[in-house]
Amino acid sequence: MRLIVIGGDAAGMTAAAHVLRAGGIEVAVAERGPYTSYSMCGIPYFVGGMFDAPDDLVVRTPEEFREQGMTVWMRTEAIAVDPEARTVRLRERSTGAERDEPYDALLLATGAQPSIPGVAGMETYARPLRTLEHGEIVRRELDGGPPVEAAVVIGAGYIGLEMAEALVARGVSTTLVDAAPDVMKTLDHDMAAVVEEALGDFGVAVRLSETIVAVEGADRRPSAVVTETARYPADLVVLAAGTRPNTDLAVAAGCDIGPSGGVVVDSRMRTTVEGVWAAGDVVESTDLVAGLRRNVQLGTHANKQGKVAGVDIVAAARGGRGEAEFPGLVGTAVTRVCNLEIGRCGLTEAEAQDAGIAYAATRFTGTAKSGYMPEPGEVHVKMLAERGSGRVLGCQLVGTGNVAKRIDVAAVWCQLGVSVSEAQLLDLSYAPPFGGVWDLLQIAARKLTKELDLSPQL
Amino acid sequence: MRLIVIGGDAAGMTAAAHVLRAGGIEVAVAERGPYTSYSMCGIPYFVGGMFDAPDDLVVRTPEEFREQGMTVWMRTEAIAVDPEARTVRLRERSTGAERDEPYDALLLATGAQPSIPGVAGMETYARPLRTLEHGEIVRRELDGGPPVEAAVVIGAGYIGLEMAEALVARGVSTTLVDAAPDVMKTLDHDMAAVVEEALGDFGVAVRLSETIVAVEGADRRPSAVVTETARYPADLVVLAAGTRPNTDLAVAAGCDIGPSGGVVVDSRMRTTVEGVWAAGDVVESTDLVAGLRRNVQLGTHANKQGKVAGVDIVAAARGGRGEAEFPGLVGTAVTRVCNLEIGRCGLTEAEAQDAGIAYAATRFTGTAKSGYMPEPGEVHVKMLAERGSGRVLGCQLVGTGNVAKRIDVAAVWCQLGVSVSEAQLLDLSYAPPFGGVWDLLQIAARKLTKELDLSPQL
Repeated sequence: MRLIVIGGDAAGMTAAAHVLRAGGIEVAVAERGPYTSYSMCGIPYFVGGMFDAPDDLVVRTPEEFREQGMTVWMRTEAIAVDPEARTVRLRERSTGAERDEPYDALLLATGAQPSIPGVAGMETYARPLRTLEHGEIVRRELDGGPPVEAAVVIGAGYIGLEMAEALVARGVSTTLVDAAPDVMKTLDHDMAAVVEEALGDFGVAVRLSETIVAVEGADRRPSAVVTETARYPADLVVLAAGTRPNTDLAVAAGCDIGPSGGVVVDSRMRTTVEGVWAAGDVVESTDLVAGLRRNVQLGTHANKQGKVAGVDIVAAARGGRGEAEFPGLVGTAVTRVCNLEIGRCGLTEAEAQDAGIAYAATRFTGTAKSGYMPEPGEVHVKMLAERGSGRVLGCQLVGTGNVAKRIDVAAVWCQLGVSVSEAQLLDLSYAPPFGGVWDLLQIAARKLTKELDLSPQL
Repeated sequence: MRLIVIGGDAAGMTAAAHVLRAGGIEVAVAERGPYTSYSMCGIPYFVGGMFDAPDDLVVRTPEEFREQGMTVWMRTEAIAVDPEARTVRLRERSTGAERDEPYDALLLATGAQPSIPGVAGMETYARPLRTLEHGEIVRRELDGGPPVEAAVVIGAGYIGLEMAEALVARGVSTTLVDAAPDVMKTLDHDMAAVVEEALGDFGVAVRLSETIVAVEGADRRPSAVVTETARYPADLVVLAAGTRPNTDLAVAAGCDIGPSGGVVVDSRMRTTVEGVWAAGDVVESTDLVAGLRRNVQLGTHANKQGKVAGVDIVAAARGGRGEAEFPGLVGTAVTRVCNLEIGRCGLTEAEAQDAGIAYAATRFTGTAKSGYMPEPGEVHVKMLAERGSGRVLGCQLVGTGNVAKRIDVAAVWCQLGVSVSEAQLLDLSYAPPFGGVWDLLQIAARKLTKELDLSPQL
């Protein structure tokens, strides 16, 4: 009995380690790059110079996995699969040598890759930022070689924002460009505007609603990013403009791909092809609030899905089904940008509208600490609840403190279907350094209870 | 129709304001002291000098309430009640003048008062710290008069710890004395030990398991606190050693008092006496985890209970019952002491044992941020779950960051009866500044799922 895992990061290695520990199954992992199991979310901090060793981001090295008895093929990519014969074709990147490896179970943990816009000069001059290898390239350009005075970051999502901040903090004149009208499309416009203002105050030149038409340069070094309306000089161009799941191998195996672009899996991470599992950034998951399937690329899901896949692969080897199921997600995400903590879960207004869910929304600004404390800070709060049921549909928080774990409270409400009327009476904590006597989330829940004319109205 | 409220702080004023807004009911409030509606939790920060105006702690002044049409009798105490005649006897503290006031509905929001140990010199020389007036007295002694070089704080609960820290921060040599073997009896010993160490490192001399036998002094100024084993010089003695609910008036009205010492109320805050409600620190509430009644004195409950009482009083005036019910509590509390954030909810081991609940506990230390971040800090985590059901019984967190609102996540689990196996698969947030990819609470839930041999074991 042999499991082959394609992709040695969060989902793949979590599954591989679980199956190995269970015993009785040979486990082999093929990884394209030079690293296993690293924190992708830490890349902007590494590039920004918060720490110097890329290895700090690595949770476990190939050697450590090998010591446990795992076969690990590094710098090895999977290029074809025969699900009837149960073989996968691997290619060593250094030599180009190809070979077929037999498997009983195959786990596709192939992740996602940057979508490189089809724009003149983009592929040559822009540096994508998706893998730790990418991070090392950008870091080297910043640390060595000709000085980087001006940079353009393409893409105003989490990574793009974190990267723009890190560059400004390093003294680089930085422009952030996105074709969308807002930063962070996971937030509603009114909340994204708060983040945009903070970026501007911090010194990032934010240029939205601008479509890039060319990246100019010479000798593999960029000189400028040109949009439909402007031209931004740049010694460095970082591309953080969206990604797509690496589904080529899944397609080759005959796995169904969902409308989200991710691999279709059941709650045990089984694909539609016998003997093939998938987990992590490459799959689509159930959005428990909207009741539809989404491709969400986050380490939290990859780790859980890897575990669930591992449990099921062990059970399948014994002819059964795994006792663990991935329930789905509610789109919880946080980041910190320019001293703002930003959290979100569930549906934005746009997402609720897309899902055809009738909702009410409330939006207000409170303090991060009790108002009489020095520097009480502020937190912008937005919450959505469903008309009729009153269940919490989503929440967005942008503020100076006590945001990140507070969004988890709302996330639990979203996932468990808690209504705003129930939420307002929960026993949440209070102390002056952390907020007011009515928690901001409960103030939002009270406002929505009134707005939706639910009971009780406190 | 007339409502009289006894006590003008969180519970009383929340109810009074709600009833006034509903209209059609005359509302009068009698308050012993000179302040209405202030943040009791802010007193240590005021005394410590974080801000200078005691009024900063006042949410709304008597004048503001009067402008809304409320009758507010300040420095007026209630000394007797005739529930048959529906009259309450009031005494003006400045003149001693007494009078009977008629009511249709009476709300007892009489709060709690310091228990002054029956020890020689205690009443004369120790300064209790329960009301804003108390806080002003201590602040005046620190700011004016002969310099305070050494202080003793009696009582190692939340207020005592916050006060000891504030005094050290002001340069006062401070000893914290408690007869109990641990600081913070709302934590288990192993978690309290972390807090005790931090207090010591900060410069507070912590003296536990010491019973005070005398407070010495002259001319109303203390000179020393004497315990069974030592003598601590003190120019200031702050008493923060426990409180008891002010039930005298409730007893006079014939209300049942529960075994916890608090007034017995139903979920609408009705006492056992017709026409009499009670809310806030004076009542006992249902502990939803243990299924018993406790007297818990916190502003969060007082505010909610005041609202619930107000809603019911309005409904009762129309011959009905209020649509709002106070569901109970799970003992959620947080504080910050010496740069440690401390959160707890649900049951400690001792409380679970007292309640006869079979449990498993896990305890470990994690980081407050991702491990590769500069100064990742640490968080001590303890969680309890019930054997059999696996429901989360309680959680304690002590750490350098991201604790306060994280405890709310566990509190929601406790209140909604979420099991550890369900908890480990919830969609909680992750970003390097706020923790690791598996949230500390979910690591605890995973450990307990294994420990209790529940499914699925991730």
